[in-house]
Amino acid sequence: MKEFDLIDQIVSILGEQAFGEWVRVGPGDDCSVIAVSPDCEVVSSIDSLYSGVHFPESAPPELVGYRSMMVSLSDIAAMGAQATYVLINLCLPSESFTWALECAKGIKRAAEDSGVFVCGGNIARGPLGITVSAHGEVPEGKSILRSGASVGDSIFVSGCLGGAASYIRQISSLTYESPHYESLRKAFYEPSSCLGLLSEVRGKATSCIDISDGLIQDLGHILDSSNVGGRLSSSLIPVNKGANLNDALFGGDDYQLLCTSSTQMEGFYRIGETTQEGGILVDERELSRRGYDHFLA
Amino acid sequence: MKEFDLIDQIVSILGEQAFGEWVRVGPGDDCSVIAVSPDCEVVSSIDSLYSGVHFPESAPPELVGYRSMMVSLSDIAAMGAQATYVLINLCLPSESFTWALECAKGIKRAAEDSGVFVCGGNIARGPLGITVSAHGEVPEGKSILRSGASVGDSIFVSGCLGGAASYIRQISSLTYESPHYESLRKAFYEPSSCLGLLSEVRGKATSCIDISDGLIQDLGHILDSSNVGGRLSSSLIPVNKGANLNDALFGGDDYQLLCTSSTQMEGFYRIGETTQEGGILVDERELSRRGYDHFLA
Repeated sequence: MKEFDLIDQIVSILGEQAFGEWVRVGPGDDCSVIAVSPDCEVVSSIDSLYSGVHFPESAPPELVGYRSMMVSLSDIAAMGAQATYVLINLCLPSESFTWALECAKGIKRAAEDSGVFVCGGNIARGPLGITVSAHGEVPEGKSILRSGASVGDSIFVSGCLGGAASYIRQISSLTYESPHYESLRKAFYEPSSCLGLLSEVRGKATSCIDISDGLIQDLGHILDSSNVGGRLSSSLIPVNKGANLNDALFGGDDYQLLCTSSTQMEGFYRIGETTQEGGILVDERELSRRGYDHFLA
Repeated sequence: MKEFDLIDQIVSILGEQAFGEWVRVGPGDDCSVIAVSPDCEVVSSIDSLYSGVHFPESAPPELVGYRSMMVSLSDIAAMGAQATYVLINLCLPSESFTWALECAKGIKRAAEDSGVFVCGGNIARGPLGITVSAHGEVPEGKSILRSGASVGDSIFVSGCLGGAASYIRQISSLTYESPHYESLRKAFYEPSSCLGLLSEVRGKATSCIDISDGLIQDLGHILDSSNVGGRLSSSLIPVNKGANLNDALFGGDDYQLLCTSSTQMEGFYRIGETTQEGGILVDERELSRRGYDHFLA
């Protein structure tokens, strides 16, 4: 198959998710062209997943496609923004065309689940990997930053933690019959983009981040940016079935939202509060901020 | 060095090119936030370069950074759009921190030369490569598409062709003393983004594309999209010093603009005209559309 035939087939798989509403020009020109709502700003983020590093070489390509979308889209959600479109760079060894077509199906499913359009991209020859640049819009000046937490805010997470880390930790021994297999597999491959929580985040969060590097490390980013400390209760932290507290505190890849707010947030778990003193206490014990570092893992 | 230290150092190298004017939130949050001018649409494109595929493993990282920017920004120019910002995904083997810092210097130089801001990105562990998503803005409905050529339009290119292909073709034998070494090296590593030609493209081009896969193949995209044919005169095609006509016709990687227009375009070379009959004639001989295919090269 030639490159342009492969692109045609991928665009055909994407179907309605490649064109529509705010997409003025979709795949097939030098750039995509996108309309932005009046009085809105654009929010943008980029993330990549490589075979053998961010997903197992044997990973089902449909799920890699799905996961790659959610990893980038959760950044849009963490800004309190509406996701609008993504661009995708697919890097393929020459024999990977079937892989690419399966991956495109997962991308399409994630686009449908998130209400975004996949309106452009690129295919390159090289090591198997996928890079997604995700884009959204937010009313001017209304993006939720990491720096907005105040002393006394409650700290919330949007869902169970540790499942993705537990899946990767046990991957060589997990089988379909393992307890909680499906829950762990889903935590890794099919995280939520959290875009469904947008109205709650917009109305109430004083700061927000998506948990990619582990709860403690990502909470550290909010606390540092906001010049506050934090106190967590381990008994309040929602731990994924089949995961342990260590996975939930230090494991990455969950892509749940971590927020602060001065009021109750519906659909979120309250796990602690911000404090005047710096640092992070868990059950009154000070923790180091060990989390996922891409170059130490 | 840890990942976050590396990011800090890169942001420090980028300096003023990471923040400014239309950048509301730069590096350091989940997303960048960018203001869009009223009555404008956003144009977006993504491209990647991998070591050993798109640049030699021994390539100077400063030049790889520079080239990666121009490769993506020429797509913005080809839409008749003003480039505004880029996001960068850097994929690094664990020992490549010095490489990354040198690469950042080239990215900064390209950003200065093009008037864009590098306001976000990501660093991943994996095979050495760089992906740039480039973004710009254009007045509503004014983007220049591949489909706008009419029969009888002149065909123009913005500069010399074949230099990048000649450089790669001869790379194992080229030395500093080779004739035209500097011109060929520059054609490959420091192509122009062509953003300086924006006013001419906006006012006059009926269609436009950047030449990434070779003149004949990329002209084919314009002709197919516009339902016209083309006739070129080889004697009118500007061939880079040290390259031959074959490089100019079929070699990729030059990133010059290829336009059609019903009027003269200043600063461009007129190389032929569009015709009623389909296909491409060079000196009245019909050519096949052989160009660069990422999976046949």
